[in-house]
Amino acid sequence: MTPKNDRWLLPEGIVELLPAQAQQLEQLRRRLLDTFNGWGYELVMPPLIEYLESLQVGTGNDLDLQTFKLTDQLTGRLMGVRADMTPQVARIDAHVLKRDLPTRLCYIGPVLHTRPSGFARARAPLQVGAELYGHAGIESDVEILRLMVETLKQAGVDNIHIDLGHVGIYRELVKEAGLSAEQEVTLFEALQRKAKPEIDACLAQWSVKQPLRRQLAGLVDLNGDRSVLERAREVFGNAGAGVQAALENLTRIAETAARHIGDLPLYFDLAELRGYRYQTGVVFAAFVPGHGQEIARGGRYDDIGKAFGRARPATGFSSDLKTLVALSQNHPPTPAGIFAPAVEDAALDAKIAQLRAQGERVVAMLPGQTGEAADFGCDRRLAQGDTGWDVMSV
Amino acid sequence: MTPKNDRWLLPEGIVELLPAQAQQLEQLRRRLLDTFNGWGYELVMPPLIEYLESLQVGTGNDLDLQTFKLTDQLTGRLMGVRADMTPQVARIDAHVLKRDLPTRLCYIGPVLHTRPSGFARARAPLQVGAELYGHAGIESDVEILRLMVETLKQAGVDNIHIDLGHVGIYRELVKEAGLSAEQEVTLFEALQRKAKPEIDACLAQWSVKQPLRRQLAGLVDLNGDRSVLERAREVFGNAGAGVQAALENLTRIAETAARHIGDLPLYFDLAELRGYRYQTGVVFAAFVPGHGQEIARGGRYDDIGKAFGRARPATGFSSDLKTLVALSQNHPPTPAGIFAPAVEDAALDAKIAQLRAQGERVVAMLPGQTGEAADFGCDRRLAQGDTGWDVMSV
Repeated sequence: MTPKNDRWLLPEGIVELLPAQAQQLEQLRRRLLDTFNGWGYELVMPPLIEYLESLQVGTGNDLDLQTFKLTDQLTGRLMGVRADMTPQVARIDAHVLKRDLPTRLCYIGPVLHTRPSGFARARAPLQVGAELYGHAGIESDVEILRLMVETLKQAGVDNIHIDLGHVGIYRELVKEAGLSAEQEVTLFEALQRKAKPEIDACLAQWSVKQPLRRQLAGLVDLNGDRSVLERAREVFGNAGAGVQAALENLTRIAETAARHIGDLPLYFDLAELRGYRYQTGVVFAAFVPGHGQEIARGGRYDDIGKAFGRARPATGFSSDLKTLVALSQNHPPTPAGIFAPAVEDAALDAKIAQLRAQGERVVAMLPGQTGEAADFGCDRRLAQGDTGWDVMSV
Repeated sequence: MTPKNDRWLLPEGIVELLPAQAQQLEQLRRRLLDTFNGWGYELVMPPLIEYLESLQVGTGNDLDLQTFKLTDQLTGRLMGVRADMTPQVARIDAHVLKRDLPTRLCYIGPVLHTRPSGFARARAPLQVGAELYGHAGIESDVEILRLMVETLKQAGVDNIHIDLGHVGIYRELVKEAGLSAEQEVTLFEALQRKAKPEIDACLAQWSVKQPLRRQLAGLVDLNGDRSVLERAREVFGNAGAGVQAALENLTRIAETAARHIGDLPLYFDLAELRGYRYQTGVVFAAFVPGHGQEIARGGRYDDIGKAFGRARPATGFSSDLKTLVALSQNHPPTPAGIFAPAVEDAALDAKIAQLRAQGERVVAMLPGQTGEAADFGCDRRLAQGDTGWDVMSV
């Protein structure tokens, strides 16, 4: 039995935002959407629920486990509450908009997860992100990376650093080594844990030949500052053209991005394959000191539209607005407003309407109520002056 | 089997908003939240899912049927996706904020319904509303009614009219007649259908005495313009004090509201008891010609906080932002923007950043892409002039 006094407790990982936080979130929401608009990203609003098959296409088992299932009482079909908006936006690009041109879309909205995950162990993040479809060059990856950095800057999140990787390097090595799908997954999981002895044992057991064995095992050590890229060129010096191209792609993206994002630290980790299941190229994530979980992530995922009838190049990033607000160093707004007396007077009504139209916050007293102007966040009040109703300090 | 070609169809009553509509909705969203803020209403963001018992408290069976249920995998307890935010905001007022002062709260967010309902037969409305707690006088009801009208005005919804009723009249008559809870429900349902012969038969069968029988049956005819209030005073001339007080309350609210909302038509319907299960006083709704369903509704519901440990006077209204956008006569914004060439040049980057900071929308061309400025909604372009990068018309 649930004790009576926790009857109104919220489920774990579920939060409600009270006025001060809600206002801060709303302000940041607007600032980010304005920024996305300024960069040419068009807002779309995908549905909160969809039939399961369109929600989960090409996204793998992880998302399935994270998705709350609902039965459509009208058809008996299974629906899901979205756990990730990225596949939805890809569906809109591929199946609804169907443009031939590069298409920039952005979105913001709640998603639900069956279990706590990510930075804040939340189950109802407010996902915000931007996607660029229809361009395969490094310029679109750099634009998305820059926009992610700009998003964090607008959010007032300080001291971030960016981790960069490239799933193409791993994919191409796996292909060259001729690993089975099962072996690929086993190795992928060991790489994520940086479990070096396990990786060595696997590669030996599978009789992977040199230099591929050394190269696959070497991924674990290829992390750190920019010198990683040079070391990678040595390690992969005699690897196939696919690996070389992926490394070159990562290098050019990093160099171009570095010119734009100033002194923001860039780190590299060639064994970090976040989002591996639908990513196809560069991957990146933003971190703040003291927190192991990334606060924003992105990368290239060219194949996502295929299931919707149209595989376009695609790159994008996403974050959680609630996490950004929690980490924001922006000052919360100072409350301001005008307290109006409880008087029935057309001139007072007109004055109040005029002030509100000017963007002022005017709180009308109610007859018989308690509380002073300050209790309602008001720093001024309306009072009868010589010539009519005037705004005065309290 | 579902035919292959409707694989990506959305479930009935579920919509997605593409760029033009999404932008219009976002603009209206901001305008409404700014209006609420201007009137002193503080934004709160209640959770999308909660334990079922807190979601549904005191709201009756209707809401239960409309609520999608989910199992919390962490506790095994049943959760619901909110179908109405009003009880959530009441919980925040009563259980979280616990202020003694009048408290004005507003909210906006998605809700889900198991079956299509309301104006647009939607299952995922974007509910928007405002609530005023802690004041029992007519002034708070009038403020909420005015704010509802202002909301519709801001939304650009024309030709609205307002229907007013008062559940107190029916409640008091039922009390005087000594009807059982079951009889009350039967009569309530017949009244909603304005099924006069059925009402007469019920009242006769239950041996309700005159003048109560005439008064209860008479509710059906008490609808129309302001003259209804005068006719009601005659019909209820010898009714009890509770009925008289309710009628007086409705009359005063209508008179005061009329002074504020100009020439907006007010209609009265004393048998219209929408939201009867949690409303306690005045009820009102806004309609547009040609649509039978209300587009916004509100009223007094003083008892809603009781289950959360604190019954405060309460009055509020809510609407669906998607319905308002669909009915809006506001002109959609004209696309504008500046197209920037795909050139790597620090001076160009600086110019773009400066324009974006000024609120301009700047779309950067990507190397090798097709499409002209106009294809990206751009009416101007950046080009190299004599002294640097200049904005020129296309």
